[in-house]
Amino acid sequence: MKKINVNLSQNPYPVYIGSNIVDQLNKKIIKHCKGSSLFFVIDSRVNHYHGKLITKIIKEFPNKTGKFIFNSTEKNKSYESLNHIYEKLINGKYGRDTAIIAIGGGITGDIAGFAAATYMRGVEYVQVPTTLLADIDSSVGGKTGFNFGGIKNIIGAFHQPKFVLIDTSFLTTLDKNELICGLGEALKYSFIATEALAKFFNLKFKSLLQGEQSSIAKLIEESIEFKSAVVESDEKESGLRKILNLGHTFAHAIEAEQKNLIKHGQAVVAGIVCSIFLSQSLGILNPRKEKEFLNAVNLFKGSIKLKSPNADKIYRFMQTDKKNRSGDIKFVLIQDTGKILLDISAGKKLVLDSIKKGIEVFA
Amino acid sequence: MKKINVNLSQNPYPVYIGSNIVDQLNKKIIKHCKGSSLFFVIDSRVNHYHGKLITKIIKEFPNKTGKFIFNSTEKNKSYESLNHIYEKLINGKYGRDTAIIAIGGGITGDIAGFAAATYMRGVEYVQVPTTLLADIDSSVGGKTGFNFGGIKNIIGAFHQPKFVLIDTSFLTTLDKNELICGLGEALKYSFIATEALAKFFNLKFKSLLQGEQSSIAKLIEESIEFKSAVVESDEKESGLRKILNLGHTFAHAIEAEQKNLIKHGQAVVAGIVCSIFLSQSLGILNPRKEKEFLNAVNLFKGSIKLKSPNADKIYRFMQTDKKNRSGDIKFVLIQDTGKILLDISAGKKLVLDSIKKGIEVFA
Repeated sequence: MKKINVNLSQNPYPVYIGSNIVDQLNKKIIKHCKGSSLFFVIDSRVNHYHGKLITKIIKEFPNKTGKFIFNSTEKNKSYESLNHIYEKLINGKYGRDTAIIAIGGGITGDIAGFAAATYMRGVEYVQVPTTLLADIDSSVGGKTGFNFGGIKNIIGAFHQPKFVLIDTSFLTTLDKNELICGLGEALKYSFIATEALAKFFNLKFKSLLQGEQSSIAKLIEESIEFKSAVVESDEKESGLRKILNLGHTFAHAIEAEQKNLIKHGQAVVAGIVCSIFLSQSLGILNPRKEKEFLNAVNLFKGSIKLKSPNADKIYRFMQTDKKNRSGDIKFVLIQDTGKILLDISAGKKLVLDSIKKGIEVFA
Repeated sequence: MKKINVNLSQNPYPVYIGSNIVDQLNKKIIKHCKGSSLFFVIDSRVNHYHGKLITKIIKEFPNKTGKFIFNSTEKNKSYESLNHIYEKLINGKYGRDTAIIAIGGGITGDIAGFAAATYMRGVEYVQVPTTLLADIDSSVGGKTGFNFGGIKNIIGAFHQPKFVLIDTSFLTTLDKNELICGLGEALKYSFIATEALAKFFNLKFKSLLQGEQSSIAKLIEESIEFKSAVVESDEKESGLRKILNLGHTFAHAIEAEQKNLIKHGQAVVAGIVCSIFLSQSLGILNPRKEKEFLNAVNLFKGSIKLKSPNADKIYRFMQTDKKNRSGDIKFVLIQDTGKILLDISAGKKLVLDSIKKGIEVFA
């Protein structure tokens, strides 16, 4: 089992990574949590495939436990679901000494994490991500939240877990689309991190797509190491951490325009290609790099399909993104591998053109 | 204008205290907040008496502003009200650069503060308390939250304001019952802080009850200085800060049993007298002090009236208090002025007896 420390100033915590390690969950809970009661929020799909193992783990915990099986869709990432969790906690008489354990993907983690952030003004939280996207993305950073008024993650809180346990064997039962999502987010890291990661990503893409465990484990470790370093230096996303949003301004709008029929990680790939085109048209992007980046994006052709995308509509959704609400849209753009520019403004025409060129790749 | 610094490790902030100082709100906002948009949550009663002045202040702010007039009852300290605030923020396209300003009592501050803690994972928050209870109690500590499932403040977050502005002239339009509430909480400080504050409180009680401004200002300052020192050393209520809960385990249950027909500060006085009796029956309380404490409590006779209180019901509500959910009820008890004992257990019979004796004082 590998251990990576996320060294936040206030709430440092370890991320454990390994294959078939979820049976050590109780041991880690006893090590890292003060909480004597446990409340599990478990993704229903994960419960379908791994329910027997999870139930065994829960039963073996010496103190009080409870669970909530959660159908983790964007639609269910709502106050209503949160409401159910609060009610279960209250009716089960869970106290301040509770730890909430999320077993599932990003949606499950976000809503369980928000419940942990706000139940009794905050109880302990443990994350057991089960999708590649959650492994490499939501396991580091402490972002929690839910959707409201049609806007993704508009209500939320920063709440760091006591620890994260990533068992890569959960990925063996992962839906192909979900794997693509994770790889889409990993594509982003291959652009914003190091040449070494970029090389590894391009070289191993086929193995990764086939779910080859050792490559995936390496990808997860590298991504987490990189993201930790970024988040450690900017816990509340006031500066550097924005580099993690490469492609995301476009991606959120594409997801909305596609009525959430494509997945976040897929939209991120489409968003990244739009930001490549915008970087190019603003003269920011290293021309030698452009082809390299587009080749990496093209690895996803055939795995991502936008349904009759409309550039104007996407643009309008960008204007209502929570990051852009008080005025101009600001972009995170790319100059070179690991060289990211923040808070760039661009004229409407250039933005629209880059959306048009970007969506064409996956139309 | 007096300034007291609340020196928290992460988010230190000043509390300004004075008479007729609210017209300096914009100046202080510009000084302390980065937020360029302001969203005001204003108690409807305060708006009734001071709406003209508040509107003038809002109009004079150079950037975008909006407001929500809030009927601040315990019933309205709900997710539904929070929902309205979130909707107003979303529909008004408020961004991350928003500051939420609460003008009102504790309920208004708690719900506006929670909105600030969670809108876009946290925006700036400013508190302008307008009741004596909020002045001396909720202005320090960063507790925010709302009621859910019939349980007070069960959902919440710690979110420190950028600054607090206490204008004692708001107290001139305060309902008498509200003044009693503040004095009830001040009674607690007179027990847990210093002999000097206790002496001042007893000596000046009549002036305070008549709303005499200079005495009230001194009471607010002393209470805030004391509470700041406590909160500074224990921001998240893991230890020392529990002394602030003297009487509160009883008080929350009394409020619930009285169906919230009495006010929090009044219930605190009734709760304190119960904890005096419990401290005495456990042999904790200095007998010389007992009479002195009861004399102070008796100052409130005539101002607090419980309606057919039922000790058994109160006991049952104590068992469901959020602090006691996972087992034993733990009490904060008193030995002497400034000498408070934490996490004391007591047998059911002794607790019931102390409730009976306590409620008799105000029956």
